[in-house]
Amino acid sequence: MHDGSALREPLDALFRPRAVAVIGASDTPTKIGGTPLHYLRTLGYAGRVHAINPKAAAAGETIQGLTAYARVQDAPGPVDLAIVAVPAALTLGAIEDCAEAGVRGVVMFSSGFAEIDAPGAAAQAKLVETARAAGIRLLGPNCLGFMNLAEHVYATFAPVVNAGVPPLGRVGLVSQSGAFGGFAFSLARERGIGLSHWITTGNQADLGFAECLEWLAADPATDVIVGYLEGCTDGDGLRRAFEACRSAGKPIAMVKVGRTEEGAAAAASHTAALAGEDAVFDGVLRQYGVHRADSIEECLDIAYAASVAGLPSGRRAGLFTVSGGAGVLMADTAAARGLEVPPLSEAAQARVREIIAFAGARNPLDVTGQVSQTPGAFREMLELMAGDGSVDLMVDFISAGGLSPAGLGFMADIAATRAAHPEIPHFLVTLASPAFRAAAEAAGCPIFEDPNRAVQAAAALVHLVEGLRRTAPAPAPEAAPPLRVPQGCTEPQGLALLAEAGLPAVDFRLAAAPEAAGEAAEALGGPVVVKIVSPDIGHKSDIGGVRLNLAGRAEVEAAARGILAAVSAKAPGARLEGLMVAPMRRGVAECVIGVQRDPTFGPVVMFGLGGVHVEALRDVAFRAAPFDEAEATAMIHELRALRLLTQPRGSAPADLPALARLLAQVSRIAAASPDLQSADMNPVLALEEGAVILDALLIPASAPPA
Amino acid sequence: MHDGSALREPLDALFRPRAVAVIGASDTPTKIGGTPLHYLRTLGYAGRVHAINPKAAAAGETIQGLTAYARVQDAPGPVDLAIVAVPAALTLGAIEDCAEAGVRGVVMFSSGFAEIDAPGAAAQAKLVETARAAGIRLLGPNCLGFMNLAEHVYATFAPVVNAGVPPLGRVGLVSQSGAFGGFAFSLARERGIGLSHWITTGNQADLGFAECLEWLAADPATDVIVGYLEGCTDGDGLRRAFEACRSAGKPIAMVKVGRTEEGAAAAASHTAALAGEDAVFDGVLRQYGVHRADSIEECLDIAYAASVAGLPSGRRAGLFTVSGGAGVLMADTAAARGLEVPPLSEAAQARVREIIAFAGARNPLDVTGQVSQTPGAFREMLELMAGDGSVDLMVDFISAGGLSPAGLGFMADIAATRAAHPEIPHFLVTLASPAFRAAAEAAGCPIFEDPNRAVQAAAALVHLVEGLRRTAPAPAPEAAPPLRVPQGCTEPQGLALLAEAGLPAVDFRLAAAPEAAGEAAEALGGPVVVKIVSPDIGHKSDIGGVRLNLAGRAEVEAAARGILAAVSAKAPGARLEGLMVAPMRRGVAECVIGVQRDPTFGPVVMFGLGGVHVEALRDVAFRAAPFDEAEATAMIHELRALRLLTQPRGSAPADLPALARLLAQVSRIAAASPDLQSADMNPVLALEEGAVILDALLIPASAPPA
Repeated sequence: MHDGSALREPLDALFRPRAVAVIGASDTPTKIGGTPLHYLRTLGYAGRVHAINPKAAAAGETIQGLTAYARVQDAPGPVDLAIVAVPAALTLGAIEDCAEAGVRGVVMFSSGFAEIDAPGAAAQAKLVETARAAGIRLLGPNCLGFMNLAEHVYATFAPVVNAGVPPLGRVGLVSQSGAFGGFAFSLARERGIGLSHWITTGNQADLGFAECLEWLAADPATDVIVGYLEGCTDGDGLRRAFEACRSAGKPIAMVKVGRTEEGAAAAASHTAALAGEDAVFDGVLRQYGVHRADSIEECLDIAYAASVAGLPSGRRAGLFTVSGGAGVLMADTAAARGLEVPPLSEAAQARVREIIAFAGARNPLDVTGQVSQTPGAFREMLELMAGDGSVDLMVDFISAGGLSPAGLGFMADIAATRAAHPEIPHFLVTLASPAFRAAAEAAGCPIFEDPNRAVQAAAALVHLVEGLRRTAPAPAPEAAPPLRVPQGCTEPQGLALLAEAGLPAVDFRLAAAPEAAGEAAEALGGPVVVKIVSPDIGHKSDIGGVRLNLAGRAEVEAAARGILAAVSAKAPGARLEGLMVAPMRRGVAECVIGVQRDPTFGPVVMFGLGGVHVEALRDVAFRAAPFDEAEATAMIHELRALRLLTQPRGSAPADLPALARLLAQVSRIAAASPDLQSADMNPVLALEEGAVILDALLIPASAPPA
Repeated sequence: MHDGSALREPLDALFRPRAVAVIGASDTPTKIGGTPLHYLRTLGYAGRVHAINPKAAAAGETIQGLTAYARVQDAPGPVDLAIVAVPAALTLGAIEDCAEAGVRGVVMFSSGFAEIDAPGAAAQAKLVETARAAGIRLLGPNCLGFMNLAEHVYATFAPVVNAGVPPLGRVGLVSQSGAFGGFAFSLARERGIGLSHWITTGNQADLGFAECLEWLAADPATDVIVGYLEGCTDGDGLRRAFEACRSAGKPIAMVKVGRTEEGAAAAASHTAALAGEDAVFDGVLRQYGVHRADSIEECLDIAYAASVAGLPSGRRAGLFTVSGGAGVLMADTAAARGLEVPPLSEAAQARVREIIAFAGARNPLDVTGQVSQTPGAFREMLELMAGDGSVDLMVDFISAGGLSPAGLGFMADIAATRAAHPEIPHFLVTLASPAFRAAAEAAGCPIFEDPNRAVQAAAALVHLVEGLRRTAPAPAPEAAPPLRVPQGCTEPQGLALLAEAGLPAVDFRLAAAPEAAGEAAEALGGPVVVKIVSPDIGHKSDIGGVRLNLAGRAEVEAAARGILAAVSAKAPGARLEGLMVAPMRRGVAECVIGVQRDPTFGPVVMFGLGGVHVEALRDVAFRAAPFDEAEATAMIHELRALRLLTQPRGSAPADLPALARLLAQVSRIAAASPDLQSADMNPVLALEEGAVILDALLIPASAPPA
């Protein structure tokens, strides 16, 4: 709906207002209309603040020491942001007032709209219409507002602010849920994680999660983004926002609820916004390099690590430890999370053993408790790992050292190492005194109390960096001509269409009758498969419509007759359009490629291995179309059963580049083909060289339900 | 090595000593020989403490205010425990002194033994021999000692104690690693988790992890056990300890490192003790209902939850929340961790909606922010869920309520609900003030800051309870007669042995020549499989030694000739013992049952699905033999591909009880058969009724390597 620049200016006015009016202002700081006034007046906001309350204005009363105006138009000077805290029935009037007053943005706390019932939804639609006509952007209704910590804009009635605010920092937070946002805010404060912006989107009548994310992508105060999302219908907007964050080099860690059936059921009863399949959502997040977290704690760990340490440049982890056991545990977690734990160079290992004979010198580098008895050893050991050229990041386990009197000395050594090798971030594991924590964070070293959480956060950053580095995914959809799929598209029609589009469909012959099938087999040579052709038959095998591995004209003819007899018996009403003869192909493994239209993201491509892997085991990967070969390669590597392609029994590995090319081609065709409702290429045979589509069922967009 | 009572008494003397001597005592509290003396003197130990130091004794000096004795024999009165903090060269003399003085237990800090080199290992063996001859139990060497918090026995030089000790509580901790133990100790202190005992085992020369665990199983001060283990060679002892904990109803959460190849490599370089396959270890932990944690934080979460909340009685979770989004997230996590989230009764749901019209009434019970505006609503909502009869535990998300002034009121409501329904534990999610935390824990409600961690801890307790409830696993091994496996056991011999042992092996006929094979096929009726019989051929299929799906005498004879020709060509030297003819069987799915001898646990049984599932995907479950049907059922349910048995395409589900019976029978036979090195039953066909072993390769224990 908005390109970047059209979005930016009105939202700047909303999130960085020069003057704020509270409509429905209250003299009582604990009331919904009193709280934001109280926060704005006491927490350092530098712009002008106006209190709007017709009763107080009529009575000539002040509100929290401010003149009360009857209407926002009465307040002096331009107002960028109006905070609306009046009952639902009064909100439309408030928006009309805002339009008249030239207000640029509205934050609406009021509830009683789409979250309640259909009349509420209608009232909400009217609000949005009125606001848009006046060029006003609307956050809410039914939201907890936002905070801009750098400029002290507390446009919220969240009571959590009373307990204190987190330090100013570089983490922006967007939450659809107010309660969740408030909880995350409190957790950030308790952990000392610095925030830039805190935004809750509530009913998302106008401004949604995606636009807020996109605004943060361009916000100079924000480096890292934490999100919480329940449901999204604006798939295009979300992808644009993700892409904007990626272009800006800003990692995102987010919770998207509804991963399990139980969660989806709970979400459906909680919000009407949930749409689309979770596996598709998961695929899109991977596609844009967004980290999907299971918990708000995991999000905050990542945001904290990124904002303090910066981003590592590679996946080679150096594990530095005073405890052998902790080293093993970290090595387990590092491997499980996709980090490499390469050995130090022989020279470094030799020097390590010179310093402490019984140190573990490889990696983990186990310097043992002995290190504290050996002057200079701690610093040199750190240097041996950081300067070895063999690692991209370090996780330093120093047990409870951060509490001990000697801890600050160790910290100075770590800070010196960090400064000498600024490209190598350190993630510290220790229990820390406040002084130690301050020194560590000042040196760019985040602190974790649990070794696994430190390694997990480091691994998440590595994967985020890899996502940020990947080239933009979308070769323009025009790259492929659209597929024109007829109603009742048969298998040979489908294969022909795919072949025309440049995809490696299997060669085949059509035959009107058994004799012609025999001739066709002879022409093809080698063993063949014969199948019935009918627009009315979906699962050909189930009714005897397929015969495999036939050799010789006589056998083919006999089989063709058998097929016709079986089909006549099992599907007497079906229109038959003859027989199809194709060579029997053998390859490395059977795969499945699917295209479907997701209600949120439109055309998506699925990839999996054939048979039980897709259907029973749900070992599949999704991506929104279009995408490129690199993305397709990532998709293939997501399969749990990847080994069946890379280390098959009895053949060379499958040609993964060919599969990736095929997937990317399919994705471009899917994106370019509004007529295509779904495609089921099953099987696609992965070969030692290339890949071939053996069967395809294409369904046009307007097809009646089967 | 020890039955329960033989273990108990000497270890009581060690862990609960009436008098302690420190050998190598130092006047300096920060020195290794000074620290325990300092702790014992200042932290409340009520028994007598003696300082042993020949130099100080000769000089007539006191040590930390105590008389110095030259030898432990010189100290007055009986000494139960001697702490040895002298250089390695002096340790044997110290043990000899202890023997003479009638010391019962020794804790040895000294390092320089098996962790260093072979002479060190020999010196360590001599120490153990000397100690055992004198009836002394030895903890260490190269360990950080132990603490008995109730009796203030600080037999450790861990510096972490200087920063303070955790509260006295019901959690016992055993760690092979001292550094790791120290870190866990500090974490427990920081989180206020109450400990009973803290034990580090170091080199485990005499007392190992298993015996310490077994002692804690009988310790009245301990309810819950946290463990950290790197490697174990005493599989029998470990199983006995696990069983003792289970009998005593004490849940165990432990970290066992070396889960990944990288971790195992790091562990191997760190400790020589690692042995056995990780998947086998994993299976044994499941078998005894031990929770295998990935991190020390997870262990502490579980220990904290269990010691504060007690154990839930079932897996039905009630999710109570002031935020819909948190409810969805918790539902996701609950489902992913195997909890049920059943809906409340219709009556309860109706009443919920009477109180707050827009509450989420099902489960999660989303009481919304509105609950704080409605007097009495919070308490009644809690009661509606706790008193509904539909849940076994509750997780209550109250956002940052534990920090707000109103929080203590909410806590009083939760405490009242907990008291009214003592069978339903509550796990709270909130940020808490110290007063709130104290009130919550006094009411038996553990507090978590992250909703997922609360749900994960609750789920872990549920699974621990299910493990504790399971009946003891081991029908006596005598229940099965041992299998006598000949050298070069052929497939028909193997199948015959299994059939004799009462297992469902496929029926078959032997045939000396193709003609006899044809006759045998005719006698069997229906399609058959024909295989070569040879003690020298392992993989029959690979050399054309198997032909499937043969019908009719002529086809069978021809195939048999083909087999003999192929085998003569491909394996010219192999001894041939004729042909085997068996009916072709079709079933639900092909499975694999294996028996192997694990270096730690002896005979273990493996179960998996056939083909790629075992070999490429490693989707297998292990158990130590013997075990019963219930355990076998749990084993089957561990498979990721379980659906291929329970929801197969095109047939009724497999007969899981029959598979479980078969696995349990195999396990009894494996346990009773020292002659059996390994067995590979592949495939075992799971049927709609029953199961049948189609092929079996048995290897006797003394077989030369293939």
